[in-house]
Amino acid sequence: MTSPLLAGTPSFAQTINDFKNGRTTPRDYLERCIDAVERLDPTIKAFVRTDFDRARKLADASTTRYKKAAPLSSIDGMPIGIKDIVDVAGLPTQMNNGLYKDYYPRTDAACVRAIYEGGGIPMGKVVTTEFAIGRSGDTVNPHNPHHTPGGSSSGSAAGVAAGMFPAALGTQTQGSVIRPASFCGVVGYKPTHSRLSLGGTHPVSASHDHLGVLAMSVDDAWWLARCIAEYAPVPGTAGLRGPAEGPTPALPLTRALVLRTQGYEDMDEASLAAFEDTLDKLRARGVTIVESSSTPQLTDLTSMLDKVPPKSLEMVAFDMRWPYMSYVEDHPELMGPRLHSLMEDARNITRGRYQELLQFRQELAQRLANLHDEFDVFLLPASSGPAPEGFEFTGARTLLVYSSFLGLPAYSLPVMNVSTLPMGLQVMGYADGDYRLTRHAQWLMQALQQ
Amino acid sequence: MTSPLLAGTPSFAQTINDFKNGRTTPRDYLERCIDAVERLDPTIKAFVRTDFDRARKLADASTTRYKKAAPLSSIDGMPIGIKDIVDVAGLPTQMNNGLYKDYYPRTDAACVRAIYEGGGIPMGKVVTTEFAIGRSGDTVNPHNPHHTPGGSSSGSAAGVAAGMFPAALGTQTQGSVIRPASFCGVVGYKPTHSRLSLGGTHPVSASHDHLGVLAMSVDDAWWLARCIAEYAPVPGTAGLRGPAEGPTPALPLTRALVLRTQGYEDMDEASLAAFEDTLDKLRARGVTIVESSSTPQLTDLTSMLDKVPPKSLEMVAFDMRWPYMSYVEDHPELMGPRLHSLMEDARNITRGRYQELLQFRQELAQRLANLHDEFDVFLLPASSGPAPEGFEFTGARTLLVYSSFLGLPAYSLPVMNVSTLPMGLQVMGYADGDYRLTRHAQWLMQALQQ
Repeated sequence: MTSPLLAGTPSFAQTINDFKNGRTTPRDYLERCIDAVERLDPTIKAFVRTDFDRARKLADASTTRYKKAAPLSSIDGMPIGIKDIVDVAGLPTQMNNGLYKDYYPRTDAACVRAIYEGGGIPMGKVVTTEFAIGRSGDTVNPHNPHHTPGGSSSGSAAGVAAGMFPAALGTQTQGSVIRPASFCGVVGYKPTHSRLSLGGTHPVSASHDHLGVLAMSVDDAWWLARCIAEYAPVPGTAGLRGPAEGPTPALPLTRALVLRTQGYEDMDEASLAAFEDTLDKLRARGVTIVESSSTPQLTDLTSMLDKVPPKSLEMVAFDMRWPYMSYVEDHPELMGPRLHSLMEDARNITRGRYQELLQFRQELAQRLANLHDEFDVFLLPASSGPAPEGFEFTGARTLLVYSSFLGLPAYSLPVMNVSTLPMGLQVMGYADGDYRLTRHAQWLMQALQQ
Repeated sequence: MTSPLLAGTPSFAQTINDFKNGRTTPRDYLERCIDAVERLDPTIKAFVRTDFDRARKLADASTTRYKKAAPLSSIDGMPIGIKDIVDVAGLPTQMNNGLYKDYYPRTDAACVRAIYEGGGIPMGKVVTTEFAIGRSGDTVNPHNPHHTPGGSSSGSAAGVAAGMFPAALGTQTQGSVIRPASFCGVVGYKPTHSRLSLGGTHPVSASHDHLGVLAMSVDDAWWLARCIAEYAPVPGTAGLRGPAEGPTPALPLTRALVLRTQGYEDMDEASLAAFEDTLDKLRARGVTIVESSSTPQLTDLTSMLDKVPPKSLEMVAFDMRWPYMSYVEDHPELMGPRLHSLMEDARNITRGRYQELLQFRQELAQRLANLHDEFDVFLLPASSGPAPEGFEFTGARTLLVYSSFLGLPAYSLPVMNVSTLPMGLQVMGYADGDYRLTRHAQWLMQALQQ
């Protein structure tokens, strides 16, 4: 049974050849997306603010470029939802918090400028939870409107799932790209830390904050991320590397390590069964699946990973002292309960403690890096189950924080179903191995969607 | 001949014991600073905006704390000038550019919040050049009002020199703390890169941007920097290390390397003579001064350093693509000529070129780090001479960019005079060796001011 809230818009990767051969145009594709918004968004509530006039002008300019066979980049003509903690000049950035109700940024975020330079088409601002870490917004899950879409990139994931745009900008501090991607059945991609610019994006915790993307396909996700890297430098780093154009060639997995951390304890039987079934399918495709309890060394690694969730939260809370300590002190009535509670925690964390956390993080990162020649990727569920019913709880973070804490690239791939709801497979790679991971993700989509 | 624009306010370090023993109070000290502003600022033009009402309230609260023998930190009661690219809630952050004329930030910058937490007293916003990199402001040099105070932290340096506040926040991308400190005859301190939070400070180039301080004494500078590190975490780093309290014990130099780079070609005879005289004084105090041409290895290092100025500027221009490319495109009439010309340069720099620059930087940093056991510090002039006449040109950058490019801590110490104007000695240390460098700076002040 398919939800009536899924418009079935084809992915950008499926469409771009038709732009090139003239069978359709970016303007037509945009109109299809706008139609999905107009029909479905009264229920789904992915958008905070649309800007279709500007989007149509940009789509017409893109249409002209394809007619001249001169698209600007792989995302020329791609309609994109922009999470509402990312600045778009001319629109307010409201952060889902009253303090920013009337905040009009003076210029575009670096990633938005990059999207314009590549010919992408921002369609408007989509719902975030409060500052991407607090109270939920109004968005519902297009697969079942009584369920959460997940957060914090709620509008981004729901909009992609519903067919309102083929890709959206999200951000992840602990699990805010991977989790909503899992719940909404779309591709989520969080690159290696600091490889995409966060300029013009409201901070949560710079040690954990990542710009990421939610998309209909692996190519849609990669092209958008890669375009941002092309036009928006990240000061002091080489940025995201890998080809900017063309379909991503699938790279089969040979050996994968399943990370069996404490997060599995939150999983129900059906979700666990779906995950085991996926591993079986991979074995059937010739992948050697190694369990993280199979050697003393790996067991030791797993128990280090089990220490990550509370340590990650401590680091996040400490980093958040600026600007959130001022927010809760100066505007207590405007700030949600989670922000208050995180700032309570932050008061009790010392600089010395923070330094210990940094050392632990470095040690663990080194342990995982040492596995580079042994395993292609790390596998785990992208959430502890499908989207829960209701909207207060946007889902457990336990399975999601490893890649955020360590800054490793990760995908959520929509390759599982639990009853009628989607659930993602999480694939985590090595630092700066983004393109290789993307090629594995491409292969996994092909191998598991059959 | 002393300029009538120097109020002769004692440093904070000279005053704090009198707070403790009740001979004077933070309120009295603040009034002395306010008096200097009211008498001298009509000529010096260090301030963009004062907030003396709030400053007086904060000083009274500090006075009460000293009476209870319970100061909050080493800077409790310290009046401080805040460079106008740093956010202070309630005041506009105007960046010396029309685009930000009416920009009221929603909260304090991380460093300003830290100052409040430590009991420091922001007196208002002081002049910056346009976005800390473009057109000059109206500030003049208190030692001679026909001369530039240097930039970009113009108001910060001039205000400290004139006696309007014992310390001020500055920022440095290429030379914006060290140069005005040299020209105005005050202590300038630029810590190791990313050891003080830049949250709430308008960016120029994050690979080069540093928060720094200008101050009347080495202790004033260190205490302010250290207090900011205490209360404003820098996500993902351990921040600035070293004692937060007490006078900094002088640490004599034993061996120093004089970096003789091409920057010396800009120096006139008198300035060079002042520098040589300083080196002679140090030799007389038993310091072994090694010239950077004394071995083939050091000569090689020097020629690498000579490549730094243009490479540094390329990195800065590339980083500035966001947000300055949008600024010059969307508001060309509001942006000064230097911003336009930097963005012209930025268009021609590729990602590949940027990666080469990063590699060069890493190599050079390693070469300098390898000298750790051989030399206590690196010495060079803090500017190519005393402040030039006029206001258009805020001084050559060549001698200043090394520490910015490499992220190494540096002080400018007011220990030289050329005719009637001050000139600074630049002392550069090793990454994260800030406190050790500060102790050497303390010794140099004692050794050279006699």
